[in-house]
Amino acid sequence: MKIIGIDPGLRNMGWGIVVTDGPRLRHVANGIIHSAGDELGPRLATLYRGLCAVIAEHRPEAAAVEQTFVNKDAVGTLKLGQARGIALLSAAEAGLPIGEYAPNAVKKTVVGVGHAAKEQVQHMVRFLLPGAEFRGADAADALAIAICHAHHLQGRSLKIKAQA
Amino acid sequence: MKIIGIDPGLRNMGWGIVVTDGPRLRHVANGIIHSAGDELGPRLATLYRGLCAVIAEHRPEAAAVEQTFVNKDAVGTLKLGQARGIALLSAAEAGLPIGEYAPNAVKKTVVGVGHAAKEQVQHMVRFLLPGAEFRGADAADALAIAICHAHHLQGRSLKIKAQA
Repeated sequence: MKIIGIDPGLRNMGWGIVVTDGPRLRHVANGIIHSAGDELGPRLATLYRGLCAVIAEHRPEAAAVEQTFVNKDAVGTLKLGQARGIALLSAAEAGLPIGEYAPNAVKKTVVGVGHAAKEQVQHMVRFLLPGAEFRGADAADALAIAICHAHHLQGRSLKIKAQA
Repeated sequence: MKIIGIDPGLRNMGWGIVVTDGPRLRHVANGIIHSAGDELGPRLATLYRGLCAVIAEHRPEAAAVEQTFVNKDAVGTLKLGQARGIALLSAAEAGLPIGEYAPNAVKKTVVGVGHAAKEQVQHMVRFLLPGAEFRGADAADALAIAICHAHHLQGRSLKIKAQA
């Protein structure tokens, strides 16, 4: 099964695609879609078109999106929500079933503890997807989300085998 | 100029379209796009397709979206952000320039004071758009947003003439 993980953000929308083949996990691609400028509408359109292009190219069968809660200001949360809406829409418009995971759930799956540092997550993603080169931290996070979803879809077997 | 106003919400996405003809203001249509269910992706897709259909049917030349800030929990703000992202995307994908207005700015334009009650806003929208029947409170709010944008695009003349 081919899974796209998405780490939503207005400035940087991270994406990463993995394939599961029985208990094995393989890296397919990862990247970041950037948006900048003063006008929110065109920025969201850039993110939407970028994600739709990635999905059209790689044809994943499932999607996973980080369920981010920001504890900073309401303005930041609203911005994030707007980017997150685009991520969910892109997957839904492609007919993909969508899994949503809180950041701690992703860390717990990939690293083993819910409060792991960003570096630990990246280290484990490198370990689980040997040879993968990240296009940036947000792309590594997106791969971690995809791995988390693969793990949950397949039960524990995947993680145990991958870490063995 | 034909303007679509959008009052973003995940459950109820209100929209309203007005036309300005010199200093005059005319009601075209209004409605609410509903989304329900447990899965956020398909709900956002329903809102997106609904708004795209409205824009395709009525071909507005400009859009205005309420710049909502929720002061409740972060979860509510995130949900609203997701719906708002869809509203902005629909307009941007149709190539429409987008105006954003805080609720108080809309009230100040339509009623004359920033802290007007919802009923006062609806009363003034009825007054400014005689004969218009609202499909619900969110649709009336969307018309108020469209009127606000018309007023700002044309300067004060519109409001003065409309209220005369």
